[in-house]
Amino acid sequence: MNEHVSLLDRTLNSLRGAWRDSLRGAWRDIAASARGALTGQPRPELSREDAERLRVQLRDCLEGRGGEVSARARAADLGRTYLALNAVGRERFLRLLAVEFDIDHREVARLSAQIQSAADDFERRKIERTLRQALEPPRVKLLTQFNALPEGVKFLVDMRAELMRLGREDLKLAALEQDLKMLLSGWFDIGFLELGRITWDSPAALLEKLMLYEAVHEIRSWTDLKNRLEADRRCFAFFHPRMPQEPIIFVEVALTQGMSSNVQALLDESAPVGDPTQADTANFYSISNCQRGLWGISFGDFLIKRVVDMLAAELPHLKTYTTLSPIPGFGAWIEKRLAEEGDDLLTEEERAAVAAVPRGNEGFAALIAQPDWSADEVTAEAVKAPLTRLCARYLLTETTPSGRASDPVAHFHLSNGARIERINWRGDLSKKGLQQSFGMMINYLYRLGDIEENHEAYTGEGRIAASSAVTRLAKD
Amino acid sequence: MNEHVSLLDRTLNSLRGAWRDSLRGAWRDIAASARGALTGQPRPELSREDAERLRVQLRDCLEGRGGEVSARARAADLGRTYLALNAVGRERFLRLLAVEFDIDHREVARLSAQIQSAADDFERRKIERTLRQALEPPRVKLLTQFNALPEGVKFLVDMRAELMRLGREDLKLAALEQDLKMLLSGWFDIGFLELGRITWDSPAALLEKLMLYEAVHEIRSWTDLKNRLEADRRCFAFFHPRMPQEPIIFVEVALTQGMSSNVQALLDESAPVGDPTQADTANFYSISNCQRGLWGISFGDFLIKRVVDMLAAELPHLKTYTTLSPIPGFGAWIEKRLAEEGDDLLTEEERAAVAAVPRGNEGFAALIAQPDWSADEVTAEAVKAPLTRLCARYLLTETTPSGRASDPVAHFHLSNGARIERINWRGDLSKKGLQQSFGMMINYLYRLGDIEENHEAYTGEGRIAASSAVTRLAKD
Amino acid sequence: MNEHVSLLDRTLNSLRGAWRDSLRGAWRDIAASARGALTGQPRPELSREDAERLRVQLRDCLEGRGGEVSARARAADLGRTYLALNAVGRERFLRLLAVEFDIDHREVARLSAQIQSAADDFERRKIERTLRQALEPPRVKLLTQFNALPEGVKFLVDMRAELMRLGREDLKLAALEQDLKMLLSGWFDIGFLELGRITWDSPAALLEKLMLYEAVHEIRSWTDLKNRLEADRRCFAFFHPRMPQEPIIFVEVALTQGMSSNVQALLDESAPVGDPTQADTANFYSISNCQRGLWGISFGDFLIKRVVDMLAAELPHLKTYTTLSPIPGFGAWIEKRLAEEGDDLLTEEERAAVAAVPRGNEGFAALIAQPDWSADEVTAEAVKAPLTRLCARYLLTETTPSGRASDPVAHFHLSNGARIERINWRGDLSKKGLQQSFGMMINYLYRLGDIEENHEAYTGEGRIAASSAVTRLAKD
Amino acid sequence: MNEHVSLLDRTLNSLRGAWRDSLRGAWRDIAASARGALTGQPRPELSREDAERLRVQLRDCLEGRGGEVSARARAADLGRTYLALNAVGRERFLRLLAVEFDIDHREVARLSAQIQSAADDFERRKIERTLRQALEPPRVKLLTQFNALPEGVKFLVDMRAELMRLGREDLKLAALEQDLKMLLSGWFDIGFLELGRITWDSPAALLEKLMLYEAVHEIRSWTDLKNRLEADRRCFAFFHPRMPQEPIIFVEVALTQGMSSNVQALLDESAPVGDPTQADTANFYSISNCQRGLWGISFGDFLIKRVVDMLAAELPHLKTYTTLSPIPGFGAWIEKRLAEEGDDLLTEEERAAVAAVPRGNEGFAALIAQPDWSADEVTAEAVKAPLTRLCARYLLTETTPSGRASDPVAHFHLSNGARIERINWRGDLSKKGLQQSFGMMINYLYRLGDIEENHEAYTGEGRIAASSAVTRLAKD
Repeated sequence: MNEHVSLLDRTLNSLRGAWRDSLRGAWRDIAASARGALTGQPRPELSREDAERLRVQLRDCLEGRGGEVSARARAADLGRTYLALNAVGRERFLRLLAVEFDIDHREVARLSAQIQSAADDFERRKIERTLRQALEPPRVKLLTQFNALPEGVKFLVDMRAELMRLGREDLKLAALEQDLKMLLSGWFDIGFLELGRITWDSPAALLEKLMLYEAVHEIRSWTDLKNRLEADRRCFAFFHPRMPQEPIIFVEVALTQGMSSNVQALLDESAPVGDPTQADTANFYSISNCQRGLWGISFGDFLIKRVVDMLAAELPHLKTYTTLSPIPGFGAWIEKRLAEEGDDLLTEEERAAVAAVPRGNEGFAALIAQPDWSADEVTAEAVKAPLTRLCARYLLTETTPSGRASDPVAHFHLSNGARIERINWRGDLSKKGLQQSFGMMINYLYRLGDIEENHEAYTGEGRIAASSAVTRLAKD
Repeated sequence: MNEHVSLLDRTLNSLRGAWRDSLRGAWRDIAASARGALTGQPRPELSREDAERLRVQLRDCLEGRGGEVSARARAADLGRTYLALNAVGRERFLRLLAVEFDIDHREVARLSAQIQSAADDFERRKIERTLRQALEPPRVKLLTQFNALPEGVKFLVDMRAELMRLGREDLKLAALEQDLKMLLSGWFDIGFLELGRITWDSPAALLEKLMLYEAVHEIRSWTDLKNRLEADRRCFAFFHPRMPQEPIIFVEVALTQGMSSNVQALLDESAPVGDPTQADTANFYSISNCQRGLWGISFGDFLIKRVVDMLAAELPHLKTYTTLSPIPGFGAWIEKRLAEEGDDLLTEEERAAVAAVPRGNEGFAALIAQPDWSADEVTAEAVKAPLTRLCARYLLTETTPSGRASDPVAHFHLSNGARIERINWRGDLSKKGLQQSFGMMINYLYRLGDIEENHEAYTGEGRIAASSAVTRLAKD
Repeated sequence: MNEHVSLLDRTLNSLRGAWRDSLRGAWRDIAASARGALTGQPRPELSREDAERLRVQLRDCLEGRGGEVSARARAADLGRTYLALNAVGRERFLRLLAVEFDIDHREVARLSAQIQSAADDFERRKIERTLRQALEPPRVKLLTQFNALPEGVKFLVDMRAELMRLGREDLKLAALEQDLKMLLSGWFDIGFLELGRITWDSPAALLEKLMLYEAVHEIRSWTDLKNRLEADRRCFAFFHPRMPQEPIIFVEVALTQGMSSNVQALLDESAPVGDPTQADTANFYSISNCQRGLWGISFGDFLIKRVVDMLAAELPHLKTYTTLSPIPGFGAWIEKRLAEEGDDLLTEEERAAVAAVPRGNEGFAALIAQPDWSADEVTAEAVKAPLTRLCARYLLTETTPSGRASDPVAHFHLSNGARIERINWRGDLSKKGLQQSFGMMINYLYRLGDIEENHEAYTGEGRIAASSAVTRLAKD
Repeated sequence: MNEHVSLLDRTLNSLRGAWRDSLRGAWRDIAASARGALTGQPRPELSREDAERLRVQLRDCLEGRGGEVSARARAADLGRTYLALNAVGRERFLRLLAVEFDIDHREVARLSAQIQSAADDFERRKIERTLRQALEPPRVKLLTQFNALPEGVKFLVDMRAELMRLGREDLKLAALEQDLKMLLSGWFDIGFLELGRITWDSPAALLEKLMLYEAVHEIRSWTDLKNRLEADRRCFAFFHPRMPQEPIIFVEVALTQGMSSNVQALLDESAPVGDPTQADTANFYSISNCQRGLWGISFGDFLIKRVVDMLAAELPHLKTYTTLSPIPGFGAWIEKRLAEEGDDLLTEEERAAVAAVPRGNEGFAALIAQPDWSADEVTAEAVKAPLTRLCARYLLTETTPSGRASDPVAHFHLSNGARIERINWRGDLSKKGLQQSFGMMINYLYRLGDIEENHEAYTGEGRIAASSAVTRLAKD
């Protein structure tokens, strides 16, 4: 098997370049034979006349002039035009789509009025159906046609990313962005995504993208990356059939004996490689979304659970599925609390311990504001108790008005049905780790039997699941 | 290359069975661990209590109880329940979906009223967005969740086929059917379909399906099929990434020197195999839709043009792209005309020729009503002139009120931009061919440079493109 | 996974034709540019002048004229020449190879003499090395060069099949055949073979070959074949990387509860499909060698044991690995014995039982010589005891002078380490089954723990392993 | 296509790990059940008792004890034993093979004597056949059995590499090494090798090996490597079906307009990427053998010509196929000549030019011995004429006693049928380039129509093909 796979890899590689080009060529040829394509490439900033010609073109696409095949081929050509524009030109292009191919508000109003006076169920349904169509802006059909581009799906994903930036202050662009979100939500339904394992045998072009997209613990080099793909690691990603070179979201897992408590240990390239068949714990230590244009369409929960299934099937010795997660909101929260309440946040005992260390008399806030506090063992020992206690409290009690955990990572795992299992002191001593969370990391535990109940308790009643140790700590 | 491919085929085959099962298992396991699954399998006809429990289950899925992953797993389980029902049970299941998870008409009416009095553009847009959501029935979300089934897409396609039958007389089921159509239209966007070549090296399981789905010229045996996949033939189909074992539409092509004029010649298993590299003509002699549940979502035009591209790239000698097509509507049309007008349909000359043959005195209608008229050379010669002339007239002048060609096959190719090139006397002497069209077949010609213009002329002005020979014939 | 596999299948299929041709083209181009290729195609029977030109060509190949790449390309061209010859021409071609490119016997004699007088170890080794080279006929290099043909390995396998026929009466052709055997033995070392599973998803072109090659129980139709690939069956074959479209040997397995006792039951297309996960027994009911040209190079033992491994990994419920095998030699043996000894072969009791049935008075031999004896229940019951008893005796005691079991199937399984487990009365009621073995079949049992010991006992001491039931029967 | 490929890549990746292990497991299980396996792992240096047990084991393998399947499984186990030994242990293992499983010299002598007195052709052939078998040492069968290891072919290739080192001074180990060479020559027949294209989409694990094996122009980093795989580059390698993760030999090609004259320009990571479809020249600028254990089995010629075919098919604009090659022998040669003849090597004119530059009065040899001569433009200009002239002379006239070009790279390309086209001054200004060849590089031109003639002229008569420019230069 192994051998066939490799032989195939190479064979396919040989074919790839040629085919990619031929595929790209296919629609282009149709487009070229389509009459009325934009004569010449427009100027990068899309001048007024170019925009006018573009409007006509888009109208033609919408009406299917020359037949659907030609229309779509021409749409693909317009997509290429868009890619060749500069920032100004692209915004103009998008605005054109947003303004000129919007809903016909008068038609909507007319149908809405009719609905009030529908004669019977049959007529009402008919009007509703018409109204529903009227509420879908014509530009949605145009957006769909861009799918004819060889990398049309990625094209639309990136277009949405651009619109998310532009749309913040523009109602019409925001509406276009919402159209795209709806379209992409349908196409990126979880049922269409493919779970793929990524290894050191994966294409370098794909691995390079992991390095680019990793958002939690930066991948510093190819050696760092290789270490994360060793025999005692697993890496999985979701892919879309029409965006096969692009991971959508990926997770890195370390297989260990016992829950991992320190991320530097996991990333240490010189550490010996463990035996995966002897591991009892899978630690999800990094999960990164790769496509800004899919923001708000959620896959993380599905990814974790599918990976748990995969791992369970491959490695029957695994008993514990946990994360090793940052606490991105803790640093800011405690700073704010200290600014408001000062050392009153601490228990008497804690205050005494703090006061006893060098420079401790300047107070807790000052002590942990020192850039190198963690390097000094005495200081570190003194602040450990209050920091871990406050961390537990932060996670278990600090919620938004709508009842969600304030910390976004906590919210993600809690709504997935995990529970807060352990606070790891000195879990991430990187600069970022110290800034965000004073070096602490959390193990969120996924226990299959409890997931649904935890989820319901959290989303229904705002009840946060935690181990007794963490719960106790928060109460101290 | 070839060798790797074959090795791989076998390797993959070895893996297939096991993996298919493991995939099926994956969601099942999640579903099994989901609380509240239908206890036991309901009775095949879905009793009242079963239906009530089903309603609760569907409601839970809709609300995402236990988290989205669990909800979807449970939906997959309900999909399996549906598959185990009999006809009565399935109709009840569908009716439940249609009735209980319909649009909230009152909410729609309320929002429609609000729209009339929107304060400003911002507010109007907001209401429109809400209204649009309100017009999407909740059952659409449920239908989407069935996508979690390993063969979820096929599941929904087949469900629509069932609804098309049931919905003819039921407003609510028809509405559910329309929801499915919209959902599937998005998923089956042409951009997501894969063009695949089918050969004698294709899986037997796939070839078996061609035999089942061929709708124009029945495939009688494996030998017949093999003949259609010889070196001077091509067969292509569209596939969907999530329905890989199922062709959506396929086309059979014969590579010949000169346009083919007779389908029996093409299907003759004992005929020698031609040299494809010497062929100058590609004859599309059979095109079949495979999935009833995708009725109304059109691919044929795209298929023909993509195949033309593929063939042009592979075989630079090809100059002519044509069809060899039946005329399904001609038989019925002429029968009707003869019933109305009798032999007045014929020219004097034609009438004389007819009268001269044995039993010709009984008239033209009687003559061609004889089951074996075509076997008698004298008779056949006498009726050839009127039949071909009337056929030309039928194709060129017989239109529906909306201006489409009456013959459905003619309409399909004309709206694709082809032109009527040649009428082939004795083109299909099968029983079906004689019944439908007195044994005649048509070559529709696809000329790349004329396609758009033909399309526009036909769809815009109802102008039908034809060769001068056919045009002249129709005028006689 | 499943989906990717299918998508891939089709993609690869699309590529296949084109690539096959391009590969074939590659060497051909080189060959075409090679100077001095046979001018024009020789006449089919290879005339004297053609043969002379061929001799020169072969000599050029051997000397690597124009460089190794060109020489090999030209060899490929000569291979194509061979394929275009008729039977007479081919024999001339082969004879040319055998006679003109033989060992230089004088050189061998010279070196053999030298060896007698080698001065020291170093010199002796040097002569031995030279002698070894001299003993390898130059035609072996030529045969190897034919490997440059796209299907060069199959070419040589088929050439050997042809030589096996011709060489029976010709010393020199037999020597050429032996050269080929040595060459192929190296290339078909078991380590190079790939085990592949064959399913209904396998290419039709491959399945068609199974139908052709099945040697034990004829495959009558595609429906019959499909039945042998259902969910409760397995089919595996060995393939060579350079002969990927050609199975070398394949085995058919039925998964049942309990050992199968009747092959018609297994081949019954209307029988329900069992659940493979519930099966406890794997029955190897047909094993066929596919390539006559590999005669004498043995794979069957490896195939059975690799398949046992595969099945054990896939289906942990399997406990018993057995065959359901014919007894091809029994019919002829008993006929001979009856001719010699008559009814003395039977015990008194058996004779009495035989005498009691209609026509029984004509004796045992006459009774079982009736073509329809098995259809008559009374007769069948009467002859069951003597036939099964004699069958046991045949298998356990009838050996060749060299101590092998006389029955070739028995010898194959016994030397693999299996034991004779059960004689199945009415195990194969096909015409062939009744003729060969009076409808009986054998279960040979493969028990992993006993295989080595059974093998050693059989090959070392000629001891045949059998169940106590069969042993007892043989002693009656 | 592209998409399927990627999907597949990932799918396969997911399967890989598991399967690799399962394959490894397969034989191991059989081995484990084989009786008499080496009890426990021997000590790394293979003690005397271990060696004795090993001898018995090897003997059992040879005799096929327990059946061929078991014997081979046990051999695989012994292979693993070998891998676990240290250098001392391995040498002992190899010596055991070499000494104990050698040819039976007495038997050879006996048969050699018989041959002298063979009665007739039939008997002589029979003895010859027996003698041939006697001349094949039994250890060859053992070596073959190691092929049962999952990476058995690589195992034997590496074993030969080890023997090449050890065998230099040991007759018996050298004989074993020769056995391996013969075995590997058969297995690595060019007909079995697969040509694969390597791209940035290839597995990282494979690309990493390119970095390791590149022998001409060191790959300094992943960025350097990526640059060599850009759109205007091609990289191809030969692979063996049973060693799929290991390139055997690979070549790097740059597609340019006009012949490339400078390797630093090709390796410049910041240079713009050219358009391959516009290139007219393919420059083979690096070709590296990867497996020391295949030394003496030649593939380079085949590789170049197959790649030429591939490129010609892909890029019809290509007109020129050339190399950009080092001159590894020139530096040493000129040094020796200068030591012998001093500045007499130079023409009067050249001497004058040299004398005119700073430090030129110390003579030519001293001038070009300066480490930084090339950095000084005036000096460089002065030495250019003599160096290029002497280089031409070196290449065209300097031959070994057997008539081969002295320079190994020149010999390789000339015997492949290429001609010396151009000497590139300042073609490789790396430290290595300056040392080896004073910064010069050669374009060897492969012109399809001349290859055979060039080859014959060179190998037959020692005639070296060169462009008129180079020929003229050598005559100056």
